[in-house]
Amino acid sequence: MAVHGESDVEVSVPISGSLTEWGHSLQARVYFADTDFSGVVYHARYLEFLERGRSDYLRLAGIHHAELDDGKMGKRLAWVVRRMEIDFRAPARIDDILTVETWTARISGVRIFMAQKILRNDVELIRAQVEAAVIDERGRPQRFPAEWIESFKPSDRSG
Amino acid sequence: MAVHGESDVEVSVPISGSLTEWGHSLQARVYFADTDFSGVVYHARYLEFLERGRSDYLRLAGIHHAELDDGKMGKRLAWVVRRMEIDFRAPARIDDILTVETWTARISGVRIFMAQKILRNDVELIRAQVEAAVIDERGRPQRFPAEWIESFKPSDRSG
Amino acid sequence: MAVHGESDVEVSVPISGSLTEWGHSLQARVYFADTDFSGVVYHARYLEFLERGRSDYLRLAGIHHAELDDGKMGKRLAWVVRRMEIDFRAPARIDDILTVETWTARISGVRIFMAQKILRNDVELIRAQVEAAVIDERGRPQRFPAEWIESFKPSDRSG
Amino acid sequence: MAVHGESDVEVSVPISGSLTEWGHSLQARVYFADTDFSGVVYHARYLEFLERGRSDYLRLAGIHHAELDDGKMGKRLAWVVRRMEIDFRAPARIDDILTVETWTARISGVRIFMAQKILRNDVELIRAQVEAAVIDERGRPQRFPAEWIESFKPSDRSG
Repeated sequence: MAVHGESDVEVSVPISGSLTEWGHSLQARVYFADTDFSGVVYHARYLEFLERGRSDYLRLAGIHHAELDDGKMGKRLAWVVRRMEIDFRAPARIDDILTVETWTARISGVRIFMAQKILRNDVELIRAQVEAAVIDERGRPQRFPAEWIESFKPSDRSG
Repeated sequence: MAVHGESDVEVSVPISGSLTEWGHSLQARVYFADTDFSGVVYHARYLEFLERGRSDYLRLAGIHHAELDDGKMGKRLAWVVRRMEIDFRAPARIDDILTVETWTARISGVRIFMAQKILRNDVELIRAQVEAAVIDERGRPQRFPAEWIESFKPSDRSG
Repeated sequence: MAVHGESDVEVSVPISGSLTEWGHSLQARVYFADTDFSGVVYHARYLEFLERGRSDYLRLAGIHHAELDDGKMGKRLAWVVRRMEIDFRAPARIDDILTVETWTARISGVRIFMAQKILRNDVELIRAQVEAAVIDERGRPQRFPAEWIESFKPSDRSG
Repeated sequence: MAVHGESDVEVSVPISGSLTEWGHSLQARVYFADTDFSGVVYHARYLEFLERGRSDYLRLAGIHHAELDDGKMGKRLAWVVRRMEIDFRAPARIDDILTVETWTARISGVRIFMAQKILRNDVELIRAQVEAAVIDERGRPQRFPAEWIESFKPSDRSG
């Protein structure tokens, strides 16, 4: 019964998703908390699914939010979202298993532009462009270390 | 003590905000639930503040989500967000009182484009453009009644 | 039209609620974000309404979360919830205006027990008992200052 | 590096958790969205982790929220939480992998009492007792089918 995007409820998935040729892919379930009274997922909750995709992409590249906050890079740092563009193309529903795809569209010394999709099976529900940066405690943008720029090479993935 | 955007904790505000010459204005508090471990408001929670502004703008124009859902217009209808562009310019913090400003940028027969700002005192924290529509239970877009188009006349407000 | 607990959409309310003889009362609106696909408010979102009531009760007694976090009391402090009991008696719906009532049931040197209700008009929707404490950065409970104990004298309010 | 409850970021987990001798176990990650400005998980967000545990326990027993809502049992039904008791014993943090354990404490014709724990590795963070029921569109409690009562036999698990 694949109506909710699951071939089998007993399927196992990598808890942090997987690195792919073009970026990162994560599977996640829609629960009660994600929905609203119109019967589908509340629009702002898609941003939480997108954030999970980005966080797990960073995680598999060796970047952990808790470590940045603990000062591992020399001072307390945090990732912040600067700008988002989001197209809500079709709704997700309770019990759906979603796939969150994340890749680098462009990276400069202090900004990264990520592209993201949320799909149910092969149906594209959400498209997003996200501009992010790393700031210190005073809100000042920090230059990305060379190895991050290496890890997040832009993909030429179309679309 | 105006540090959190409040001149006085005992200030009273219209619970649904107010209609203005150019659109609608609403004041709302930042609570624990809106923040994340980086110390400021979680980026997706700003969308909830924006939604409150749009819902109260509709409410003061006589449009109630519960009534649309109950079939007041002849069948079950719901407002949906089709697309958002959001600039996160500066962070809001716990205890802040925010002002959410909403106005119509453009309206057609089936789509409305709203512009929104979130401010703390006179500091602009968030800018957003929101494209919304009304759909029936099958997800089909519905034409806006003439009186809605009248109520949501575009403002020529710059910025 | 008082169906959603509002006598008038243009009503004004104190943004931080009001101190009463027995404690504190706050009015707050139910928006899209608070609901789930069953058509009513998602059970965990009532805890956000309850938290707003407690935070505003503290606020009107001169206790601000941001100041505690900034070290105003000599070190970084935070309020934490230790235990909750919640009865979900009847559901709240989109557009409802809710009243959150909060009072002190008992206070000791390091713990406060607050009782809370959420009502729509005179209908009781939620009852809660909340045990809270103040901790430092290492998680150690802190003794309440004498003036807090004075401010949060237990009410003998029945029920 | 097991500090966040993970032996390996590339670990795979059953997306709906697993049935156990005594009930159900689910693993889930803590993300940005789950935390608040005090640096740990926001208290109401633990209820979302608990709900995921209960929903997936039902799912593996063949009960799907979407199907109940679609009228599979003869009319539209929904699970509701009637009462919760929650002990917040220790905080979870960003990046943690949590284990949500759920089992039946007691079941009658119209009510089920579930016990739940949230752990990080072997440390118990949350304990909860949850009373739930199934209601129809008018809010009336429904008798559980015999096969549900069979599926949710109480466990004599201590604690």
